[in-house]
Amino acid sequence: QANVTVYGVADGSFDVVRVSNTAGNAAGDNDLGNTTRVSTNSSLIGFKGAEALGNGLTAVFQYESSVGFDNTGGIGATRDSFVGVAGGFGTVVLGNLTGPTRALGAALDVNAGATGIGANSALLGKLGGYLVNTTDLAGSYPGAAPNTTTNCARSSTCTSIFDTRWKNAIAYVSPSFAGLSVTAAYVANENKAFQGASAANTTGYDVGLKYANGPAMAAVTYNAVSLGQTFAGGSKQADVSDFRVGGSYDFGIASVRALFDHARADHAGIGGKITQNVFGLGGTFNVTPAGKLLAQVYLARDLKVDGSDAKDSGAKLFEVGYEHSLSKRTMLKAVYAHLNNDNNARYDFGINAVGINPSTAVAGLNTAGATIQGIQLGLRHSF
Amino acid sequence: QANVTVYGVADGSFDVVRVSNTAGNAAGDNDLGNTTRVSTNSSLIGFKGAEALGNGLTAVFQYESSVGFDNTGGIGATRDSFVGVAGGFGTVVLGNLTGPTRALGAALDVNAGATGIGANSALLGKLGGYLVNTTDLAGSYPGAAPNTTTNCARSSTCTSIFDTRWKNAIAYVSPSFAGLSVTAAYVANENKAFQGASAANTTGYDVGLKYANGPAMAAVTYNAVSLGQTFAGGSKQADVSDFRVGGSYDFGIASVRALFDHARADHAGIGGKITQNVFGLGGTFNVTPAGKLLAQVYLARDLKVDGSDAKDSGAKLFEVGYEHSLSKRTMLKAVYAHLNNDNNARYDFGINAVGINPSTAVAGLNTAGATIQGIQLGLRHSF
Amino acid sequence: QANVTVYGVADGSFDVVRVSNTAGNAAGDNDLGNTTRVSTNSSLIGFKGAEALGNGLTAVFQYESSVGFDNTGGIGATRDSFVGVAGGFGTVVLGNLTGPTRALGAALDVNAGATGIGANSALLGKLGGYLVNTTDLAGSYPGAAPNTTTNCARSSTCTSIFDTRWKNAIAYVSPSFAGLSVTAAYVANENKAFQGASAANTTGYDVGLKYANGPAMAAVTYNAVSLGQTFAGGSKQADVSDFRVGGSYDFGIASVRALFDHARADHAGIGGKITQNVFGLGGTFNVTPAGKLLAQVYLARDLKVDGSDAKDSGAKLFEVGYEHSLSKRTMLKAVYAHLNNDNNARYDFGINAVGINPSTAVAGLNTAGATIQGIQLGLRHSF
Repeated sequence: QANVTVYGVADGSFDVVRVSNTAGNAAGDNDLGNTTRVSTNSSLIGFKGAEALGNGLTAVFQYESSVGFDNTGGIGATRDSFVGVAGGFGTVVLGNLTGPTRALGAALDVNAGATGIGANSALLGKLGGYLVNTTDLAGSYPGAAPNTTTNCARSSTCTSIFDTRWKNAIAYVSPSFAGLSVTAAYVANENKAFQGASAANTTGYDVGLKYANGPAMAAVTYNAVSLGQTFAGGSKQADVSDFRVGGSYDFGIASVRALFDHARADHAGIGGKITQNVFGLGGTFNVTPAGKLLAQVYLARDLKVDGSDAKDSGAKLFEVGYEHSLSKRTMLKAVYAHLNNDNNARYDFGINAVGINPSTAVAGLNTAGATIQGIQLGLRHSF
Repeated sequence: QANVTVYGVADGSFDVVRVSNTAGNAAGDNDLGNTTRVSTNSSLIGFKGAEALGNGLTAVFQYESSVGFDNTGGIGATRDSFVGVAGGFGTVVLGNLTGPTRALGAALDVNAGATGIGANSALLGKLGGYLVNTTDLAGSYPGAAPNTTTNCARSSTCTSIFDTRWKNAIAYVSPSFAGLSVTAAYVANENKAFQGASAANTTGYDVGLKYANGPAMAAVTYNAVSLGQTFAGGSKQADVSDFRVGGSYDFGIASVRALFDHARADHAGIGGKITQNVFGLGGTFNVTPAGKLLAQVYLARDLKVDGSDAKDSGAKLFEVGYEHSLSKRTMLKAVYAHLNNDNNARYDFGINAVGINPSTAVAGLNTAGATIQGIQLGLRHSF
Repeated sequence: QANVTVYGVADGSFDVVRVSNTAGNAAGDNDLGNTTRVSTNSSLIGFKGAEALGNGLTAVFQYESSVGFDNTGGIGATRDSFVGVAGGFGTVVLGNLTGPTRALGAALDVNAGATGIGANSALLGKLGGYLVNTTDLAGSYPGAAPNTTTNCARSSTCTSIFDTRWKNAIAYVSPSFAGLSVTAAYVANENKAFQGASAANTTGYDVGLKYANGPAMAAVTYNAVSLGQTFAGGSKQADVSDFRVGGSYDFGIASVRALFDHARADHAGIGGKITQNVFGLGGTFNVTPAGKLLAQVYLARDLKVDGSDAKDSGAKLFEVGYEHSLSKRTMLKAVYAHLNNDNNARYDFGINAVGINPSTAVAGLNTAGATIQGIQLGLRHSF
């Protein structure tokens, strides 16, 4: 049938991960020795179509879902899913959308599909583990001091609010003028509370300006979210935002890329202003026509709370990997990732977390400051 | 592959909805000011097939699912899904089915796909918000006096038990004789309780007689459900039923349609007999070859409890809309809907409810008598 | 599109089931009289593909899901779902997999798709209802004496841990040498606990040797699982295993098959060693070119606890059925199944259980020793 195309990616890997050196515990306490698992790394299936309407207009739709085929995850419309119309004026879509901020983080990641344990979403925009996961009220934004909580179960996705798709969103993507394009997304305040009830009113926007011309790409994005709810410990409306600027250059045999990320929260539970900078650098090198080396380093600096440094609240992420293409649609890959938390930090992998989570840890033992390592050996197949 | 067809509808709209004038509260209390949202209006994806078996027999199957692509709803077999066989004798199917009563309500609705905030399912068969949602035991049928509870979360589907698909159903559809056809569905009592346990035993049937000949259609349906459980406040088995009669005529450039609905409950929590009548009238008018105006009015009369009028327990629904076809498969649409509750009523939109729900309202404030309004601007694309 | 194939099975039946003769209760108490239901018997939909990579290599993937289309079950990757690569060396896949032990049980079952109320999974490997369902920590393995608990809701799948797919698995299937092939699967210990926490560490392997040559098939399999958790009532790590040997011969007009199953648990809650043997025999006979009779008998012997017989802890399963093919892809089928529990046993159907479950039974009444019967009349269509 011509009206709909079924497509997807099956990306499976065998992982060995470990956690060690948790700060302040006796040797070995609260560590996780070598643990094996099968990961499905953002595998997906989608249904999409486009219909030419005449006059240069096109109707477009897409239902795309993650598939956790290692442990029977459900199929929904959990990834970019939308309906809309495209024409000379650009494209307008409604649905569950990746905004320009999340898109820039993924575009500058060195991993195929921006997935796996080495993905830069481990550090980007998290504000010390403070702003993790979903963009709606169902998300839990811890109200206590930064770094005291994360909510990432083992093998879960543990990305920041800015690196999560927007629900109930409408977006406009402009045409490209001399390589320049603009994207603007608005998120509806569907959860707005009744008058007199606690003031939930999550809404936001996400805008980006992008330059793409041959081998060069550069972009700047800004994502602002009014969480609207009163956090524990705070009496005011919480506002959070993320600013990113970055770019890449493709030399053919090699590529380089760099990213700066600045996250900020106001009144998000502890009353004041919290900010954090994250810097990243990555590159790839084609050692053979079918073989590509990749590496990236990301550095999350200490948080600043009302301008003062929150000591030892940052982390570092190192990744090296190798991809061997068996065809245009299929590759083997091997990755080593190393996430080094400062003594008060609890960062975890963004995709396939290890579970640095106070709620599942051994009672009485510290979960901060852990070193997380892992290797992934896998196969990625697109269809 | 010839054996299976992938098909569906992507129907996305940008809505602004509001709630006001709740009865007996101070001005503005428990109101919901203008609230934006993206709605996906019964969007769906399905997989279906038919195999000619010889001798005029055909095997048929269909797995059809709603897709809430504004907020990542899962894909299942949540809409009409079945396997069966068709032949000269008619069609027999087993699965999750729309019976003739629900089908008649939808057929006489003026909206494409009978969906959106103006759909007639806002009022049909609800018996004052008493009989909402699922047909199995998991459904919650409030046991207290009519109108004291509804269970419809914001943006949820909030239709009556008679306007919900039957689970565990088997149905027969006759061939058409001179335009006349019969449909009969039976619902299995899969949840029947063990002897000695509380007497759950939900079962029912749904029958319809339909005349369709060129521009004219008329039908009468009757749906009876034995809920079999003891409701709070009642000691007897609850039985509910719904009778509908209606028809439509298509003049080509315009169409008219009318529907009468009579719902009844015996021993459903408050001991006696509750009945309610709903009347509806709708029409469409093609202002241009691609442009269609539509409008409908539905009126839910006061409930009668043991023959006595339950004052101010009805509601009125008004809808006007415009559809502009971009192609045979794609249209733009704009709709305004206005639901006016009587002072003791808590009706809500049937598709994409606003959430007139005591459990989520401001404590101490009344939720009855509200006026609910909304506009939807959207795109509907079939594939 | 050539890259992906959509396929599946729609298998719907109308069932009448009953439960009677529960041990020790007054006549009729805790019985379930004739109850009707629609069952969807392991119906499924899948997406799969294969890509030739050159050099005899092939990339393969499959996302396969059950579809409970009688009651709107979600679509996921709940059945065999994997990505991998095949070549002269054999096949390696990662994902959610059927190991050789489960595969042998299904291969020797007489039912199409090894599904329905007569399936041999009602008795195989259950160790007296002790080891039911999922292979991960989310599974609940009752800690008390055998037979005191099962956790099977009505109409649920109620198969043993050994007859459930492995999550987080990696498997190798060898090429066939003169009819002989080997399968080996390993299951990752993804749920391993942090050091100092309770010692969850589920992991296991499943190996099989199979001979298949023309009409003859024979296989031996061994599946060992370290549950790693401390069961209620036990202080040691629990280990469970299952050994199977069986075979079949196809005479063309008829077939015969036999299976021996030996399940064992060490320290699984009650401290000692529990073992059980199950014997099965089945056959089919083609009475016409399109009509096939089928029958099977399975006998679960009493458990042995630390070498002593646990009296009246076994069960017997009898099934007779008839399949009438309407085409290569579509058949009608009729089945009668009879499960006779010993006085202390609580076996239930493996597919579409009746719900012999202490938690849902009438308080104070016994649930052991019941006789469970059912008939299924259905249609099975492959696409």
